[in-house]
Amino acid sequence: MTSTTTNWDAIASEFAGMETIADPIQLAKLSLDYYDFSPVLEPKLKDKRGNLVVRPASEAEILQVAKICVKYKVPLTVRGAGTGNYGQCIPLEGGVILDTTKMNQIRWIKPAIACVEPGVKMAAFDKKAREIGWELRMAPSTYRTATIGGFIGGGSGGIGSITYGQLRDRGNLHAVRVVTMEDEPRAIELRGDEVQKINHAYGTNGIITELEIPLAPAYLWAELIVTFDDFMTAARFGQALSDSDGLIKKLVSIQAAPIPSYFSALQTYLPTGKHCAIVMLAESCLEPFQHLVREYNGQIIYHKTAQEASKGTSLAEFTWNHTTLHARSADPSLTYLQTFFFTLERVEQMYHHFGDEVMIHLEFLRVGGKAIPAGLQIVRYTSAERLNEIIRYHEEQGAAIANPHTYILEDGGMKQVDLVQLQFKQRVDPYGLMNPGKMRAWLELNSQQSTVNSQQSTVNSQQLTVNNQQFHGK
Amino acid sequence: MTSTTTNWDAIASEFAGMETIADPIQLAKLSLDYYDFSPVLEPKLKDKRGNLVVRPASEAEILQVAKICVKYKVPLTVRGAGTGNYGQCIPLEGGVILDTTKMNQIRWIKPAIACVEPGVKMAAFDKKAREIGWELRMAPSTYRTATIGGFIGGGSGGIGSITYGQLRDRGNLHAVRVVTMEDEPRAIELRGDEVQKINHAYGTNGIITELEIPLAPAYLWAELIVTFDDFMTAARFGQALSDSDGLIKKLVSIQAAPIPSYFSALQTYLPTGKHCAIVMLAESCLEPFQHLVREYNGQIIYHKTAQEASKGTSLAEFTWNHTTLHARSADPSLTYLQTFFFTLERVEQMYHHFGDEVMIHLEFLRVGGKAIPAGLQIVRYTSAERLNEIIRYHEEQGAAIANPHTYILEDGGMKQVDLVQLQFKQRVDPYGLMNPGKMRAWLELNSQQSTVNSQQSTVNSQQLTVNNQQFHGK
Repeated sequence: MTSTTTNWDAIASEFAGMETIADPIQLAKLSLDYYDFSPVLEPKLKDKRGNLVVRPASEAEILQVAKICVKYKVPLTVRGAGTGNYGQCIPLEGGVILDTTKMNQIRWIKPAIACVEPGVKMAAFDKKAREIGWELRMAPSTYRTATIGGFIGGGSGGIGSITYGQLRDRGNLHAVRVVTMEDEPRAIELRGDEVQKINHAYGTNGIITELEIPLAPAYLWAELIVTFDDFMTAARFGQALSDSDGLIKKLVSIQAAPIPSYFSALQTYLPTGKHCAIVMLAESCLEPFQHLVREYNGQIIYHKTAQEASKGTSLAEFTWNHTTLHARSADPSLTYLQTFFFTLERVEQMYHHFGDEVMIHLEFLRVGGKAIPAGLQIVRYTSAERLNEIIRYHEEQGAAIANPHTYILEDGGMKQVDLVQLQFKQRVDPYGLMNPGKMRAWLELNSQQSTVNSQQSTVNSQQLTVNNQQFHGK
Repeated sequence: MTSTTTNWDAIASEFAGMETIADPIQLAKLSLDYYDFSPVLEPKLKDKRGNLVVRPASEAEILQVAKICVKYKVPLTVRGAGTGNYGQCIPLEGGVILDTTKMNQIRWIKPAIACVEPGVKMAAFDKKAREIGWELRMAPSTYRTATIGGFIGGGSGGIGSITYGQLRDRGNLHAVRVVTMEDEPRAIELRGDEVQKINHAYGTNGIITELEIPLAPAYLWAELIVTFDDFMTAARFGQALSDSDGLIKKLVSIQAAPIPSYFSALQTYLPTGKHCAIVMLAESCLEPFQHLVREYNGQIIYHKTAQEASKGTSLAEFTWNHTTLHARSADPSLTYLQTFFFTLERVEQMYHHFGDEVMIHLEFLRVGGKAIPAGLQIVRYTSAERLNEIIRYHEEQGAAIANPHTYILEDGGMKQVDLVQLQFKQRVDPYGLMNPGKMRAWLELNSQQSTVNSQQSTVNSQQLTVNNQQFHGK
């Protein structure tokens, strides 16, 4: 899309007053994310580069960036801290990279709710919010560097999801302001259910300039590791803890052996061959928690109070996709999957079926009011074919895979065309400049439109509606 | 048990230094509770009276009361505010009534946890705890007068259970101190799972002198009424709200028409013939909540902010058993049931099967990590026989009835002998003086013991174990 004849010097000069970066080493760094978690994505994405990074510091400047990109018809890809794993923010067709780093103002924090710019780092926000007793409802394991806007654009849930569900759940994002890429770019406010138009849309249909987010009460979170001799006992403990309405928790992560052996920083604590639960629990709940541990023959081998935990590395940094990070540090040939098992029976079946090839790492989270085991299994990668076989087997057995080996929005967790997001894109990004190549619905619609007349494209749009409903009804 | 020859003047004189009450009018008042919600219990309990009320003001005085009762072998029944509905604190065999009113010290309140004496009133506690941002996790609709000790001794859950489950759930009661009725009474501390020995035991096996209880973050609770044209839509809305992990709520109460017509104080708001949801919701969640309401075609016809709600009567006082109270104020022939429907399908079946005879009032609460519809249905009473028929039909269809028409501990919600509680009673109340006649297991064990030798009674105790396990396995 970005033709080789595009005059990047001319474009760069239009950004006068804003920080821009054209240095190739920096450009490479600011074009990529943790796509190399996937051996399937790695060769597809490693060479992708933007042409120019720009760092606007206000909504006014973002409006200016949008206007320039529309004027020159160059792609624009928004980037937070680049901590994603599926190339969400990797520019497939070059163009401008909008780095939100400088949009890092916390507008206000009130009890239970806050308003921030997208580039605010999650850990920095929590430090501030905890001064009045609140914190983010959920965060990824990369929360030390990840931005709030990036998490909304490319994330789905994480530490905290065991209580609050996922970002897509009603109430977990109150409002957003987005800048459009129309001929005359403007800022639009989306509130309530309207936020779903841009939620987890990889920045394909609007540049987030401000977010209103709900907060959680900041309990004092104790951090614990419990070990078990038997994996399924550990998994059942995870379910029981998740289902214990009287125990307040933020994280219930279960790691089958030998995954704990990859956590080099924790080796002094972790006995070889044991399976473990990594837990963040309200300190006030420790006593009843110990009774639950006893019931499942677990052993608490690591326990830090909230105060102790606040100093070093949080145990949270060994969970969610940081588990994968540590495993890959030990053995770069490893990769991972993302799975909704839904039931422990299915977990057990997969555990026995794949053995050491697919090492089970569970994260419990709430889906529709119910705590379910989800997996971020560590996979011993042999070939893309075998990986697809593994995925297929899971799906045949009723598990749902949110494939992390694709950068296509719909082919990851969604599995369906989101007509609301597509229609919003049609409205706010008529030239298809935003993060091009990521939204399948847009690609398909436009390849169809290029061969049919505009009347027929209306029909296609109706057909998409039908397909969408079928997926929902499934 | 209290023989007519008991010298009550002598006993009264032993209580020197403590407040005692022997005035018959006061005695009558302090012997009863809201047993008359049940036309079955009413004739059985209305004439029951204690012989003497005593109001100790410290654990030391309670030890003294215990010692005197053991010395004279007179029954002792502990009483909070008497807001129960099944005669939990009505003395079946006379004796001493231990009124905990003067045991009303809050020992300490820390974030997430507090320590109180049993006679502390729940509303008074919350007022104090909210100063540091916390409140009780759950409370009955009688929280303005009910005591914390009474709720633990005779209650099970209430407003707040939609988030934290029931009192019996691990983590909802941290520790208790109880005074025994042995020859030498002593105070015992029970911590963690040990608290189940006395939790909801109607004061049959220990006099609570102190409680350590977990707290909940005190959100600003908005109060709302949403009306619906169709009952099942209201019920489904209740389930959806309960399952919305992103919406923070304290109360989800669904009332089928004509129940709302019994709420005289709310008649200016409530349109005739509509079904309604009464909700307590974190103020910060109002915007996404409105979208949920729209999805179910509901209409918000009443909305008070937390600040407005703090002034008048809380909507909570139209829910749980206050619904029954208001219905009976309008029509004293009405009574009620307590039902775990578990599924909305079963709710619908009962709604159509019984029609106007059993008006459905649902309270959603969490059981084992899942929000389920429970019922406090309003029943048009005709006879005890018909009431039993209604109960039987519910049970045949898979609903579980916690019969509120019995004062026997095990015949209410438990449905089973609690061997742990029985064994604890054997240990701490060897003379069976505590609230006699309420624990079936004790009655059966003793009637058996009176006809067989002690060796055989060991066998009986073993048989009870087996029965108990069968119930659990059921």
